[in-house]
Amino acid sequence: MRLSTLFTKTLKEAPKDELSVNARLLMQAGFIDKLTAGVYTFLPLGLRVLKKIENIIREEMNKVGGQEILMPALTPKSIWETTGRWAAFDALFRLAGTDNKEYALGATHEEVVVPLAQKYVFSYKDLPLYIYQIQDKFRNEKRAKSGILRGREFIMKDLYSFHTDEADLDEYYKAMQKVYFKIFERCGLLDKTYLTFASGGSFSKYSHEFQTITPAGEDEIYICESCQIAVNKEIVGDLENKCPNCGNKNLKADKAIEVGNIFKLITKFSDPFGFSYVDEGGNKKPVIMGCFGLGLSRVLGTVAEVRHDDRGLVWPKEIAPFTVHLVTINSPDIEANNKIKLASEKIYRELQTGGIEVLFDDREGETSTGEKFADADLIGCPLRLVVSERTLEQDSVEVKNREEENKELVKISRVTHNI
Amino acid sequence: MRLSTLFTKTLKEAPKDELSVNARLLMQAGFIDKLTAGVYTFLPLGLRVLKKIENIIREEMNKVGGQEILMPALTPKSIWETTGRWAAFDALFRLAGTDNKEYALGATHEEVVVPLAQKYVFSYKDLPLYIYQIQDKFRNEKRAKSGILRGREFIMKDLYSFHTDEADLDEYYKAMQKVYFKIFERCGLLDKTYLTFASGGSFSKYSHEFQTITPAGEDEIYICESCQIAVNKEIVGDLENKCPNCGNKNLKADKAIEVGNIFKLITKFSDPFGFSYVDEGGNKKPVIMGCFGLGLSRVLGTVAEVRHDDRGLVWPKEIAPFTVHLVTINSPDIEANNKIKLASEKIYRELQTGGIEVLFDDREGETSTGEKFADADLIGCPLRLVVSERTLEQDSVEVKNREEENKELVKISRVTHNI
Repeated sequence: MRLSTLFTKTLKEAPKDELSVNARLLMQAGFIDKLTAGVYTFLPLGLRVLKKIENIIREEMNKVGGQEILMPALTPKSIWETTGRWAAFDALFRLAGTDNKEYALGATHEEVVVPLAQKYVFSYKDLPLYIYQIQDKFRNEKRAKSGILRGREFIMKDLYSFHTDEADLDEYYKAMQKVYFKIFERCGLLDKTYLTFASGGSFSKYSHEFQTITPAGEDEIYICESCQIAVNKEIVGDLENKCPNCGNKNLKADKAIEVGNIFKLITKFSDPFGFSYVDEGGNKKPVIMGCFGLGLSRVLGTVAEVRHDDRGLVWPKEIAPFTVHLVTINSPDIEANNKIKLASEKIYRELQTGGIEVLFDDREGETSTGEKFADADLIGCPLRLVVSERTLEQDSVEVKNREEENKELVKISRVTHNI
Repeated sequence: MRLSTLFTKTLKEAPKDELSVNARLLMQAGFIDKLTAGVYTFLPLGLRVLKKIENIIREEMNKVGGQEILMPALTPKSIWETTGRWAAFDALFRLAGTDNKEYALGATHEEVVVPLAQKYVFSYKDLPLYIYQIQDKFRNEKRAKSGILRGREFIMKDLYSFHTDEADLDEYYKAMQKVYFKIFERCGLLDKTYLTFASGGSFSKYSHEFQTITPAGEDEIYICESCQIAVNKEIVGDLENKCPNCGNKNLKADKAIEVGNIFKLITKFSDPFGFSYVDEGGNKKPVIMGCFGLGLSRVLGTVAEVRHDDRGLVWPKEIAPFTVHLVTINSPDIEANNKIKLASEKIYRELQTGGIEVLFDDREGETSTGEKFADADLIGCPLRLVVSERTLEQDSVEVKNREEENKELVKISRVTHNI
């Protein structure tokens, strides 16, 4: 994509009315725009990152047998009454229709997916079953001050698993922990993300969160460095400040943000809906459930929080809006400038033909080289390529990794192969 | 995909509480599920079709310079007050937050996109600009009885164009008409879809709808068969029952559903937001706007309405959930059955390797051949392939087009090439 055609522009300064680092950076670099507190628009650059996260999650969910559906956000009061959450769920947005009915905006979808699965699951032969969606969620938050880490509207993957018994759920639950770490690895969050024991509610002892260390986190976790797991502050007292795995008492406290959360629901939602199946012996049994949440917009915001420096964003390759940021340095000499432009266009075409995603800063006129470099750092693509009179003297482009300071000249003929 | 693993099942009979043909068929075949009146879940088969329509629209929008973003559904009252639509827009869902603010669920996004574009457009150099999204919309409909043709929640592509003057808008408006017909062609609706003159409101004489002929349509249009255009009933009187193009008085009335709608907004939304640009002479001028809507879920429902027979759905190739429905006919003889299974598995793998999307009815046991054929017809993939003892005697599979009655035997070695 040519930067000259991209309608968004970077801002000289971060917006002053925004407190969170993620939203300040993402707004300044032109990835998101704030409509109102806790509600954001994804601009072209941000949407590219979001789609990449979405594709990674979809790939990994499909690998473990997930079947993708799309449930609505507008949900009738009756299903929430069945589980008692119409009254009990504080963060539910409630609204009235001109049809004299009341609705809630889906903050989570157990109340929708259970009656749905119930239409198709009758026997043990129909289990296990894994259904997921990637969809817009709404939460009526009192305060929204963490940018896209906690929005009133946000995008989430929610998978619901259905099993014949708890042993089968346990196995899937463990497999999904690995899948989650695979996703966080691909999104560049692996080294700061801990499997964290959290409260389980009345149906199971613990739930598990995936917590990423960042000063912007709203949670506090206690890390066992030998086991590489953590405990959420809310239950660390119950565990006598010990690692639930090895009993280690030297837990290290840190601030973290919950990027994923998995629950053993057991029969919490099967019971109120009377969701049962017939086992091999002909006996009616309740369906056992798990649920596996992962916030896409929150992952995006978390990457912005943990991967930036004072010049801007630093995207991991697999979710970067573009792999290459190609910068043309114009020359005041018309002939030299034409040569630079021709060479840049050729490199742009060749990279694209080679399947490499390129953001091409082809701006001329008032934009200085310093501004171009500052924008490249702010937007944060993994590789910056520079074409100038000086690099062309050696039939080369200058290549710089966003995470390193050194630059190297690479022959134009080799550039597509070397990236 | 293997039918044995797909969690949805076809229903023996269409749901009795559903009036519309599209929802009855799509529910019976397992494409959608009804949560409540006007609110549906897209099941795996339905989501596949929806994603294909989405990709077609995205491709065509990108070709005409559209830049994709994603705006939120939750929108603050203030922006709707700026245009006067908080009070005037009947179908707006209004709700309150615990933050003591009022919100509307986006039924359309002029109020969001104008202040957004305003942040980036200052001069004639920033125009024209085309921004679009593919996103969930909400309308507080009094009645919802047309299945996914008119939902309370639905998926829409909305593109907003910004121009320096009306001549530039006119040019783009004409180009977009062609693009829309290209989209309807790819979705299999071209031959029944008419560009239809409709009321324009206070800012332009006409708007234009794309109306597809179907008895399920809620609109009545008057078709000029020589010009292949139509007039919506709401303005046919103002036009003295004549074709606005050639003056033909023999217009043919028919029922139709609006699958797309394009408007010249001119300054209807630029004015209230004070959205202006500076022209080449340094003069401040209002930005001229167009808007271009297209309902994805409505296109899907319309295809179901106009492309079905008494056996089920008949998908056009480009948006079919799968190109091939592969049916194995089991044999009571164990040895023969093993041979059939092996051959079917091989064909399934080869078709997939060849990039052909296959729904593989690998069900054994209680499912009869008649049930398998009935499901293939109901689901409506373009090609049905049958592997049986009889076809294998000739090293062949039987190929049948969903739209034709004749069947032919194709050598297994040629099947991937011949599809």
